[in-house]
Amino acid sequence: MSTSPQNTRPGTKSGPVAQPLKVVHHKFLAGCRYVRLLLGEYGQGADYIEEKYWQRRPELLSLNPAGSLPIIVENAADPVVGAIVIGEYIDETRGALMREKRLMPENPHTRAEVRRLVEWFLDKMEDEVVGYLSNERVFKILKSVKEGGGSPDGAILRAGRANLKNHLRYISHLAATRNWLAGTRISHADMAGAAAISLLDYLGEITWSDEPALKEWYARMKSRPSFRPLLSDKIISLAPVSHYIDLDF
Amino acid sequence: MSTSPQNTRPGTKSGPVAQPLKVVHHKFLAGCRYVRLLLGEYGQGADYIEEKYWQRRPELLSLNPAGSLPIIVENAADPVVGAIVIGEYIDETRGALMREKRLMPENPHTRAEVRRLVEWFLDKMEDEVVGYLSNERVFKILKSVKEGGGSPDGAILRAGRANLKNHLRYISHLAATRNWLAGTRISHADMAGAAAISLLDYLGEITWSDEPALKEWYARMKSRPSFRPLLSDKIISLAPVSHYIDLDF
Repeated sequence: MSTSPQNTRPGTKSGPVAQPLKVVHHKFLAGCRYVRLLLGEYGQGADYIEEKYWQRRPELLSLNPAGSLPIIVENAADPVVGAIVIGEYIDETRGALMREKRLMPENPHTRAEVRRLVEWFLDKMEDEVVGYLSNERVFKILKSVKEGGGSPDGAILRAGRANLKNHLRYISHLAATRNWLAGTRISHADMAGAAAISLLDYLGEITWSDEPALKEWYARMKSRPSFRPLLSDKIISLAPVSHYIDLDF
Repeated sequence: MSTSPQNTRPGTKSGPVAQPLKVVHHKFLAGCRYVRLLLGEYGQGADYIEEKYWQRRPELLSLNPAGSLPIIVENAADPVVGAIVIGEYIDETRGALMREKRLMPENPHTRAEVRRLVEWFLDKMEDEVVGYLSNERVFKILKSVKEGGGSPDGAILRAGRANLKNHLRYISHLAATRNWLAGTRISHADMAGAAAISLLDYLGEITWSDEPALKEWYARMKSRPSFRPLLSDKIISLAPVSHYIDLDF
């Protein structure tokens, strides 16, 4: 039994040559935040490499021909690509060690409900809300003019905010009627929801006084150790709202 | 051990009161075709109910608040929603009985590759190609003017066809370098690919003489018994290309 520090990472090959997990990501993408939360929950350390994915560098396309993030690479094996796919992979390779703290349920119907909501947050809400607002308010600051940077488009912001109202109504309904978003136990669905909501919160897009049930759920999520790294994320030219890092917001 | 006919459906509750699986779908959505192919492969009969999902009937929204298809309902349990989620559910409830014919591999890395491609076909290719072409060429015929029906928009068709070229290049590369799309064994990835390609083929959008490797793979898919129901799909006012039902196209 080696006592090298690498062995504190469950699931990697044991022994002194085990390589840490490499995560290619961007801090301001919900899918990437989902993977960071999951790795934190599953006790898996990683080397995080931030990628300006919109530049579509050949190195990125060789890992993922779709050019999207996140991507993880483990032990020089083929990359595992896409937030939802990575979530399944993490559970399949680490879930058994988690026992009762596992974030995927056993029952196929309950698993389907968790997956429905993970897709809701990372596909549907991304397409209708988070993608619009983060593109206009974050990525247009990070991009050069040549890359599509510039001022936010008011019409797109309005569309995203109108859609956000409908989404908040639905998520608040889930938070008000269930202990955790997918049911009685915390799951990948809560991680996906928190990933998306945390970006909107950074941008001050959520009026918490209007959403008491959602706020109570989000406060629980925010106080988890896995959440801490997200609270220190910052863009120099765009500070978060004042309550972003506050656990009693 | 009962010998009632219901027991030929693996995975449902045994005994004479077992209810057949109910599938709410539309013939001309790739995600729905994916589920039909999977159910065929896994030997699962079903009652198919076609839904004009764009009408967003309350009955549909009560099954799936997103209003999207496909949806399956089994034994009066909660609905299972979304093509990718249903694919996981079918494998989790029927896969073990399939033994070596199972369409999901065991290894987590290989599973990740299958899932990457299923997402590619049902999310990315849907967004960039299949959704554009089927909306303009199929659903605008099926919808009333009030529902958004009418003539296809030439600019959208051109965008979808331009994207299709890039997708065909990638899928042909997979078909040329691998036995099946995700590797050595047939998998959910082939079902998702065939679901998307079959819609484009119905519409005559693929020039098969330009894609020999893809054609060879698609001919293998088309000759599978699970594929037969798809070949009899028809819209009265839009006949398929002449080779659509032909196994030697």
